[in-house]
Amino acid sequence: TVDGDRLWDSLDQMAQIGPGIAGGCNRQTLTDADAEGRSLFQRWCEEAGMTMGVDRMGSMFMRHEGVEPDLDPVYIGSHLDTQPTGGRYDGVLGVLAGLEVIRSIRDLGIRTRRPIVVTNWTNEEGARFAPAMLASGVFAGVLTEDYANSRQDADGKRFGDELDRIGWRGTEAPGDRKIHAMFELHIEQGPILEAEGKQIGVVTHGQGLWWLQVTLTGKDAHTGSTPMAMRVNAGLGMARIIEAVHRIAMDHQPDAVGAVGQANLFPNSRNVIPGKAVFCIDFRSPDLEKLTSMRSRLEAEAAEIAAELGLGIEIEPVGHFDPVTFDPDLVGKVRGAAEKLGYSHMDIVSGAGHDACWIAKVAPTVMIMCPCEGGLSHNEAEAITPDWARAGCDVLLHAVLDAAEI
Amino acid sequence: TVDGDRLWDSLDQMAQIGPGIAGGCNRQTLTDADAEGRSLFQRWCEEAGMTMGVDRMGSMFMRHEGVEPDLDPVYIGSHLDTQPTGGRYDGVLGVLAGLEVIRSIRDLGIRTRRPIVVTNWTNEEGARFAPAMLASGVFAGVLTEDYANSRQDADGKRFGDELDRIGWRGTEAPGDRKIHAMFELHIEQGPILEAEGKQIGVVTHGQGLWWLQVTLTGKDAHTGSTPMAMRVNAGLGMARIIEAVHRIAMDHQPDAVGAVGQANLFPNSRNVIPGKAVFCIDFRSPDLEKLTSMRSRLEAEAAEIAAELGLGIEIEPVGHFDPVTFDPDLVGKVRGAAEKLGYSHMDIVSGAGHDACWIAKVAPTVMIMCPCEGGLSHNEAEAITPDWARAGCDVLLHAVLDAAEI
Ligand SMILES: NC(=O)NCCC(=O)O
Ligand SMILES: NC(=O)NCCC(=O)O
Repeated sequence: TVDGDRLWDSLDQMAQIGPGIAGGCNRQTLTDADAEGRSLFQRWCEEAGMTMGVDRMGSMFMRHEGVEPDLDPVYIGSHLDTQPTGGRYDGVLGVLAGLEVIRSIRDLGIRTRRPIVVTNWTNEEGARFAPAMLASGVFAGVLTEDYANSRQDADGKRFGDELDRIGWRGTEAPGDRKIHAMFELHIEQGPILEAEGKQIGVVTHGQGLWWLQVTLTGKDAHTGSTPMAMRVNAGLGMARIIEAVHRIAMDHQPDAVGAVGQANLFPNSRNVIPGKAVFCIDFRSPDLEKLTSMRSRLEAEAAEIAAELGLGIEIEPVGHFDPVTFDPDLVGKVRGAAEKLGYSHMDIVSGAGHDACWIAKVAPTVMIMCPCEGGLSHNEAEAITPDWARAGCDVLLHAVLDAAEI
Repeated sequence: TVDGDRLWDSLDQMAQIGPGIAGGCNRQTLTDADAEGRSLFQRWCEEAGMTMGVDRMGSMFMRHEGVEPDLDPVYIGSHLDTQPTGGRYDGVLGVLAGLEVIRSIRDLGIRTRRPIVVTNWTNEEGARFAPAMLASGVFAGVLTEDYANSRQDADGKRFGDELDRIGWRGTEAPGDRKIHAMFELHIEQGPILEAEGKQIGVVTHGQGLWWLQVTLTGKDAHTGSTPMAMRVNAGLGMARIIEAVHRIAMDHQPDAVGAVGQANLFPNSRNVIPGKAVFCIDFRSPDLEKLTSMRSRLEAEAAEIAAELGLGIEIEPVGHFDPVTFDPDLVGKVRGAAEKLGYSHMDIVSGAGHDACWIAKVAPTVMIMCPCEGGLSHNEAEAITPDWARAGCDVLLHAVLDAAEI
């Protein structure tokens, strides 16, 4: 088994970089804090005898050699970037648990036939640059490098420029690696495992997603002297579409969610009727039919709402993935490891998107989940127990050893 | 009559200071651009033989001496500050028309018995620091200096500190002036005069206003992995309240308006259910009963919406004035001047708030309006014709001469 204290201590040290304001983290992708976190991870890996490869998206591949270096490696990966007001474990657990797997097998004198590569995928969160899972999406060939490099943050800074600025653009062509199997350990970010009292979630599927960015164009005008009938109020249109998103998600229950997390009015002044509203809708479902139906209903209802108010409307998809089925053989290995170690477990569907969802397109892939307190994530108060982290990492170790062949 | 070309040229020169991005202005209160605009206005006034007084709110009082200096002066005033994406005429016309009145009577060799004081009131717009009409409100004794100094902009900068920073805090106690009569010329900011084909609006009343700042507190959580039933979505609550504001205003037709111009979600990330929403409601009516009824209905409905969604709610009034009735005697003088000059005119109610609305509490006050194109204001495309400006300024000249006694 792994060293739970060492893993917990590494999680704690990483959380000191890009600290939040309420105990969590603000280590957004391609910031100086991201660069600092990467360097710490690199140092830890090199101390554990690993060597580094970096691709042109900045994804870090830390390799621990196998007895047969020519065999396709087993990958363990997740992300070190966080939300602006994010938790300490979302993504970070999966990367540092990969490091802990390597540290443990070295402590235990285990040699694997296949190399093991621990990966930090760039810009998983999608908070600074939409979409989420950007670098794994490029790796999987779903998104192009040009598209990724051109993505802009709220200040208009480009992904490609920021990657160069922090000095983490590598030379490898993204996707130019053979993967025997890929494992991602992640906190659930939802309430099910805790509620069911299970230590391990064996992830069989992942939800699909649509991010739809809506731009409504009305007419800036005075809130006092413009008669109601003359208003072209983009803020009112936004309000109606936010309500429609909620109603559509409720109409697709169970197995569907929808919300608007980001919204901006322009010019955003108390006495100006908003002339423009820009906001992003997030729809998810594990059922492709529901996912497609929510998008098309929204497009129809939003067009109606805009027409009724005289607003211009543009809807741009800024993120998308279909529901994912993880590799049945690897799912069996994870379930088997949990069984063997005596951890309580259940099958589960991932509610969030993960790098594993993209990698599943190009290689056998699976995820392992551990509970998180109150199901809370994307919140600085996100919390897990050291026992949950250790159990997840133990299952990761055994499933990886199974795949990497000792 | 006044020199319409000179007035137009001054308007154009002032618009070069704090230019907007689309032909309008961004000369928000207490910015460097505001300081620059003030200096230009001071220079022009001094060139026209006027002397300056400045009060502790930064309001500028440019005095043109009368034959009998001990008589209470006639005031002409409005504001030089603008919205972030504001027009060239909102406020500025009223100040520079005051200057043109002085320039004209000097050209014509006219001497008035009473002094005339042209005033630039600080922070009329309320865009950077709520509430609007801040300095005239302090002058009228409705707001305190401490309150005004403590108001913060979006970056947390205090009004008092910014006033000191730009070097425009004077020594006069606000309100320490006797006013015989106060005139404000302003663009209508609404569509009525243009639609009715009138050159002059004789303003008999002004609408009352409530600005209600709402803070909804929910729980940040992941938009993908948090089941619908567990969400405490402050953004959804905001959407429902924005819709309620609209419905309540429509239920109070005619003579009532309502909208939300400013709204912010936190943390404002695409995949985070908003844990907080802060937004400002603007309700107006010339009818006190309707104004009061809209506020109380909103408070009741918003509390219900919040309770249904499990949100915390706080509602803070950040701006308020009752409907205003302007001085009947001065209203008669304005109507008489328009008649005498042969300008088409009609009685009108001001839809916007104005410094005159506060000064009416402490002195006989009236407003004159001129049309603006398409009723558009608080928009960089705000436009008037040179003829409209001249006609308004002519009426101002004659009404002021009537009050200042030649
Ligand atoms: N795991 C996670 O929070 N990923 C970010 C992408 C998403 O919104 O699902
Ligand atoms: N005239 C004007 O736009 N004043 C700003 C205050 C208000 O919103 O009415």
